[in-house]
Amino acid sequence: MKKISVGILGATGVVGQQYLCLLQNHPWFEITFLASSENSAGKTYSESVQNRWHAETALNDHLAGQTVYPLGDIPKAKACRLVFSALPNDAAAIFEHKYAEAGIPVVSNSSHHRMDSDVPVLIPEVNADHLDIISSQRLKRGWHQGFIVVKPNCSLQSFLIPLSALHKQFPISKLAITTMQAASGAGFPGVPSLNILENIIPYIPKEEEKTEIETLKILGALVGSEIKPTETVKISSHCNRVPVLDGHMACVSVAFEIKPTREQILNLWNSFQSEPQWLQLPSAPKKPIIYRQEPDRPQPRLDRNCENGMAVSVGRLRDCNLFDYRFIGLSHNTMRGAAGGGILNAELLVKKGWI
Amino acid sequence: MKKISVGILGATGVVGQQYLCLLQNHPWFEITFLASSENSAGKTYSESVQNRWHAETALNDHLAGQTVYPLGDIPKAKACRLVFSALPNDAAAIFEHKYAEAGIPVVSNSSHHRMDSDVPVLIPEVNADHLDIISSQRLKRGWHQGFIVVKPNCSLQSFLIPLSALHKQFPISKLAITTMQAASGAGFPGVPSLNILENIIPYIPKEEEKTEIETLKILGALVGSEIKPTETVKISSHCNRVPVLDGHMACVSVAFEIKPTREQILNLWNSFQSEPQWLQLPSAPKKPIIYRQEPDRPQPRLDRNCENGMAVSVGRLRDCNLFDYRFIGLSHNTMRGAAGGGILNAELLVKKGWI
Amino acid sequence: MKKISVGILGATGVVGQQYLCLLQNHPWFEITFLASSENSAGKTYSESVQNRWHAETALNDHLAGQTVYPLGDIPKAKACRLVFSALPNDAAAIFEHKYAEAGIPVVSNSSHHRMDSDVPVLIPEVNADHLDIISSQRLKRGWHQGFIVVKPNCSLQSFLIPLSALHKQFPISKLAITTMQAASGAGFPGVPSLNILENIIPYIPKEEEKTEIETLKILGALVGSEIKPTETVKISSHCNRVPVLDGHMACVSVAFEIKPTREQILNLWNSFQSEPQWLQLPSAPKKPIIYRQEPDRPQPRLDRNCENGMAVSVGRLRDCNLFDYRFIGLSHNTMRGAAGGGILNAELLVKKGWI
Amino acid sequence: MKKISVGILGATGVVGQQYLCLLQNHPWFEITFLASSENSAGKTYSESVQNRWHAETALNDHLAGQTVYPLGDIPKAKACRLVFSALPNDAAAIFEHKYAEAGIPVVSNSSHHRMDSDVPVLIPEVNADHLDIISSQRLKRGWHQGFIVVKPNCSLQSFLIPLSALHKQFPISKLAITTMQAASGAGFPGVPSLNILENIIPYIPKEEEKTEIETLKILGALVGSEIKPTETVKISSHCNRVPVLDGHMACVSVAFEIKPTREQILNLWNSFQSEPQWLQLPSAPKKPIIYRQEPDRPQPRLDRNCENGMAVSVGRLRDCNLFDYRFIGLSHNTMRGAAGGGILNAELLVKKGWI
Repeated sequence: MKKISVGILGATGVVGQQYLCLLQNHPWFEITFLASSENSAGKTYSESVQNRWHAETALNDHLAGQTVYPLGDIPKAKACRLVFSALPNDAAAIFEHKYAEAGIPVVSNSSHHRMDSDVPVLIPEVNADHLDIISSQRLKRGWHQGFIVVKPNCSLQSFLIPLSALHKQFPISKLAITTMQAASGAGFPGVPSLNILENIIPYIPKEEEKTEIETLKILGALVGSEIKPTETVKISSHCNRVPVLDGHMACVSVAFEIKPTREQILNLWNSFQSEPQWLQLPSAPKKPIIYRQEPDRPQPRLDRNCENGMAVSVGRLRDCNLFDYRFIGLSHNTMRGAAGGGILNAELLVKKGWI
Repeated sequence: MKKISVGILGATGVVGQQYLCLLQNHPWFEITFLASSENSAGKTYSESVQNRWHAETALNDHLAGQTVYPLGDIPKAKACRLVFSALPNDAAAIFEHKYAEAGIPVVSNSSHHRMDSDVPVLIPEVNADHLDIISSQRLKRGWHQGFIVVKPNCSLQSFLIPLSALHKQFPISKLAITTMQAASGAGFPGVPSLNILENIIPYIPKEEEKTEIETLKILGALVGSEIKPTETVKISSHCNRVPVLDGHMACVSVAFEIKPTREQILNLWNSFQSEPQWLQLPSAPKKPIIYRQEPDRPQPRLDRNCENGMAVSVGRLRDCNLFDYRFIGLSHNTMRGAAGGGILNAELLVKKGWI
Repeated sequence: MKKISVGILGATGVVGQQYLCLLQNHPWFEITFLASSENSAGKTYSESVQNRWHAETALNDHLAGQTVYPLGDIPKAKACRLVFSALPNDAAAIFEHKYAEAGIPVVSNSSHHRMDSDVPVLIPEVNADHLDIISSQRLKRGWHQGFIVVKPNCSLQSFLIPLSALHKQFPISKLAITTMQAASGAGFPGVPSLNILENIIPYIPKEEEKTEIETLKILGALVGSEIKPTETVKISSHCNRVPVLDGHMACVSVAFEIKPTREQILNLWNSFQSEPQWLQLPSAPKKPIIYRQEPDRPQPRLDRNCENGMAVSVGRLRDCNLFDYRFIGLSHNTMRGAAGGGILNAELLVKKGWI
Repeated sequence: MKKISVGILGATGVVGQQYLCLLQNHPWFEITFLASSENSAGKTYSESVQNRWHAETALNDHLAGQTVYPLGDIPKAKACRLVFSALPNDAAAIFEHKYAEAGIPVVSNSSHHRMDSDVPVLIPEVNADHLDIISSQRLKRGWHQGFIVVKPNCSLQSFLIPLSALHKQFPISKLAITTMQAASGAGFPGVPSLNILENIIPYIPKEEEKTEIETLKILGALVGSEIKPTETVKISSHCNRVPVLDGHMACVSVAFEIKPTREQILNLWNSFQSEPQWLQLPSAPKKPIIYRQEPDRPQPRLDRNCENGMAVSVGRLRDCNLFDYRFIGLSHNTMRGAAGGGILNAELLVKKGWI
């Protein structure tokens, strides 16, 4: 089987680098186009990331030697059947729709289009059905081949996958979330060490808004040509930056319309399988939700890498004096929460016939 | 004025050391008795803490040369008009009541007696009126001169002082708390570095229970010969250990019986004064609640030391989608939350005539 | 080929745990005996390490269910053709020679026997020839089948492998070493977080002595029935504990009898191969010395895991105003410097016919 | 006594902020001019540092409300009898000599003029006599009133003050230095957290060169119209960045022309007094060198603040196998090593009649 040509927009940043690492041996995809908003024109990839390569993995020579193009060189991307966008928001605003317009599907990590009612914010285990909006999106925007699919903010995965596993059977009514988010979530150079060594920053710009609004949209439904956010769930969040390298953790308190038993919850989590598992997507975790029995788990350093950073670890399920239950969720913010999540989205799009 | 003789039980531990530092130049108190559960008998204090002195302050020679007695040497403490107890729970269970029985008031940091209905869990700014239970306590236990007063768990101060400042005028109905607690809260050697470097532990044994139960008792009322916990407040908490040295932080979501305006809350906080300020206790912060206007404050490293670590810093007051308001609270866990808090308790007891 | 039965003494500690992880899929060795100095008698291994399992790897059920025996139960180890000792020094002093006496070779991480002149301190890439002392050791101690071979202190690997690669051709005369050593080198619970968060401890008990004396012995020669430390090398060290989890780093300044060129050094390092590579030992790094060209490498977090933590990373080779050259060395202290190093020693012993 | 008007160039950066904190209650100096290379024109100081105020101290309203001028507005600085320069190198290259030319002495933290043979690199305890070069400097550069005096790189203070205390009596011949330097040494935003959390960077651009060359110049002598670096001392250094907030530490190995006894060294250190102490300069530490007896001190977090961060802590004096002695030195890099050191320089200049 011939591999699918893909491009990476914003290839030289932290998330872009991770895309290259994860895709260099991918069974379906092959990188044939690299673009960057930075002044990399004419340089090879390895020259472009000199002194700011953050991944532990080494790149193969073939990728290291590829030319990095300006983002505006869209014709150079023509052979691509999709591009992954790891662009910062301002560049995403300018370029993503141009690629889509040029007929190239865009699988994006940027937040720019997340609130567009015709753009699915996709977590394959949760709302694969939202992909049906793509037809309306194309129609509305006059695009034939291209489209835009985005992934949610990296703060959501740690709680939304385990919650949606319950929501289908036991609808959720209230959610109080406190996140403790890793430094890598801010990219590079990101958080200055003087701000975070032996410290906590109880504020991440716009993060609480994203955490709340995106959750409601993902739990929402496709109504006509729009994705309507759910109106039956109320959510409130506190988002904190902590001195951890990778792994976003969430302290979750949840109320249901009808309270499930502890056993029902554990059963739903332990047996949870969804589209990525059914379709055997290459990047799908075998067990998307891992419940830890130990009283003090999950912990970022011990659990973030389970199933190559694609599973969510959950623990400490216990009763709540205010709502029904409390628990802890953890996911790897730059794997499941960034490049790994984007690749899983693309794999689902391929298997569903959109690419 | 002649200084009041005091003793320190558990003088060689982390909190004990801090008592010595804070008391060595105290205007009212003078340390005349040191006792330890450890094998320090016959040693001087400086010998006893060799290789495990954690305070930045240096001790004066007079204190450094004092003998450390076994806890059981109660007659040696006779000259003391009160003892501060920084004992671990098991030792507190054995010794605290013996000192009280011997006529020596005990101002304790231990959790052992906190749930006794005749023992006040005192935060001077919050429930100074609970001291009236001492008469019942003496009567019930057959003690004439002695009594036991305790301070709450170190996790409470960061949210309970600002909340109680509102509660008197706007009764609270619901409280969702997530704490991020410093390593020093676990004492020494406490948390192993391999557990907390670049990591978070989402569990502290019994901490959530203490956080919840003690809050209800402190907000409760003296009814007959008992302190009755409040029944009108519901509270639920998540307690986490984070790689911070000092300073416990709390993300707070709160509902009131009648929602105050943002302005009313800020006014109550900014103008808050209570018994310690009215009585001009030497360790009282001039401004017990400091509201920070910056979007990303308070932070442990920048704010824990305000007013010598005795004030609580508050910030990010904002609306909540589930309750009425969200905010962040921070207090220094080994100052206000340990030795500093104990000393403030003792100062209040003196000024109120109990000592 | 039938696997070789091995046992692990001190199986429940940090290094013991790592032995189990590394051996559970080892091509030559099979764990059939687990012993611990702790009160684990009658418990399974998984029960014994409950709440103090530090490895990220999960154990297979077979190992998890094995019984942990008291160290004194030497007859239970009879089927073992060697035991790995991860014992603390006091237990090593009591038990290691008893196993050897009972006919079971001991491959030890403990420092107890390191200075015995008839015990080789083995780094397979450096002094494989020291194994010939085993005959004298047996003769002297009256042992027939058993013997003791030890590995050096974890601080040595980061500089001694690259230095010995040069030493054979360009004899070293002077060595000034400053180490920055990871917290895991102190085991568990090891370094309290209050001592090392945002701090450095410029002292590790006995570490400088070990760093110096063991280096001289390893560079020494077998003379008659003794290993004589080298007398032509002078070494001086500073050893520091730093807030890093894994990976010991050394700043090295070195003088040679005849100064090699920079090119000669880089050639020797880049082409370095020794016994473990020639014999294709399963745990041997393909490339034992990896020279990094970047100006700011190696770094613990980025480089400690190269070649499964068994290679040494080197960088910043530059002239020295006092000696001949300066450079940086880095090795993984719990892999190459502990269990991985022990296993490589055992593999060499097998291949050399001693087991 | 009327206070001396001073200005601060680069007032809004990390070091500039510290100058304001330290000078706001200074007994001799009064800030009357603030300038910044950043786009702060027309803003007040508090507006200029919004969201990047790093000091724990709060500024008084008078300073907070002062206008920040462009660096080129030299006439606005006319009332100043000296300016402190906390400028980055490129701005220092453009502006420092212009202030001096305009008749305003410049006390600088920048490295730009450090290697000029007519500019003293001043540590008041070490080379106060170098100030005599100012006459030659003025003559050579045609300046009448103004001049430039600089302080050394922040890496030197931790070892050079204790060494110079010995050097006068026991000339030093060789110095091997390994530094472990705090993140604040790189300014703000400085070191990205992703680079330094749980990691060490064994490289700081140009730091080793500065550490070596500046040491030789400071230990040098005024010969004619030039400061000649010493030619009798050889020095070699390794400079590392570590995850510590404040406090540079140095592992020092030193050889003397004639080896002093341990007792002689300790006597020289314990009794050390120099110009700043003799002249009772307001910022001078009473005891500039503090020798710690504990085996594991000094440590950055415990010792950096001694004598308001202006003393150097020393410990672990022991014999060396290569040179004569080894020891550990520690100084606060942003106090003694930056603003505090600059202010001490200015105080010496005043007392010596240069201002």
